[in-house]
Amino acid sequence: MNTTRDQIIETTCELLETYGYYATGLNQILAKSGTPKGSLYYYFPEGKEELTSEAIERTGRRVAERIKHELSKIGDPGEAIRSFVSSIAYHVEASGFRAGGPLMIVAMETATSSERLNLACREAYHLLQQAFQEKLIANAFTEARAMQLAIFINASIEGGIILSRTSHSGDPLRNVAEMLGHLLNSLPRD
Amino acid sequence: MNTTRDQIIETTCELLETYGYYATGLNQILAKSGTPKGSLYYYFPEGKEELTSEAIERTGRRVAERIKHELSKIGDPGEAIRSFVSSIAYHVEASGFRAGGPLMIVAMETATSSERLNLACREAYHLLQQAFQEKLIANAFTEARAMQLAIFINASIEGGIILSRTSHSGDPLRNVAEMLGHLLNSLPRD
Repeated sequence: MNTTRDQIIETTCELLETYGYYATGLNQILAKSGTPKGSLYYYFPEGKEELTSEAIERTGRRVAERIKHELSKIGDPGEAIRSFVSSIAYHVEASGFRAGGPLMIVAMETATSSERLNLACREAYHLLQQAFQEKLIANAFTEARAMQLAIFINASIEGGIILSRTSHSGDPLRNVAEMLGHLLNSLPRD
Repeated sequence: MNTTRDQIIETTCELLETYGYYATGLNQILAKSGTPKGSLYYYFPEGKEELTSEAIERTGRRVAERIKHELSKIGDPGEAIRSFVSSIAYHVEASGFRAGGPLMIVAMETATSSERLNLACREAYHLLQQAFQEKLIANAFTEARAMQLAIFINASIEGGIILSRTSHSGDPLRNVAEMLGHLLNSLPRD
């Protein structure tokens, strides 16, 4: 792995999570990652859009892996998802409400303004949903029901992160955790 | 009502919904609203932050009124909320996935970077949640249960809008509508 290239992507992931695509400048990425301008165009000849696309892909893969890892710790899917969402509440609190939801600002901003970034965000969300779906299918939910729930879990977590960051409290996310736990236990698995 | 001032706020509401706070420039607001720079500083001497704060307040009041109006059309709360969320799916589709979620980009961007805008976003979300809560309390949900559900409804709609705009399909929101309908019908009202 090339560490300069890697560091540029890593810094971009962080800035996108906090500021989004439009407000993150290439100069900010260079300054924060400590790389000269030449390196950036050497590794990403197409500039900011190419770099952002790589950063979004990396974030999608990383979050999907984290979901799989966390959900593997507890057998019961309702309890596993409740515990996972509670851990996000803790993460958002620990960041001082600066972090959480690394895809959503970029996803909203670029939904109709950049086909390349829109596709990258779509694919990233798809990976997250697959991770939830796998856990549900492994616990006797049908594929259709698991996909429906996976999308709903994805949506309510994203919204819970918005409300937790805005209200400077993990409580909205803990509320999402509890409601999802209830839903998973009450909904038929087929 | 002063129409120039009003037009400036209205234009700002629209730009914030699509681009967020940092990427919306004062020049863009002036050009789109067709007002001279002098007017902007005359009506909003504290500049972009003051203007954005007013725009967020207006959006919060407007969306809360829309929620109350829509929920008043159907008696059963589960059915009313399902129908309301389905109408958002239609709205997001009709906008070509450019609109929906007028608060969320600003809320995420300014959660820790502007106390004034953070408080405006908090208050706006609070108004939305109150509108859902009122409908639930009027239908025999306890105040505590209604608040818990109102926050969850708010969260899952925000997330559903992100996924619908990203995937260029109203289906994630229609899925949220169905899941919320199920939850409201299966959860004890106390």
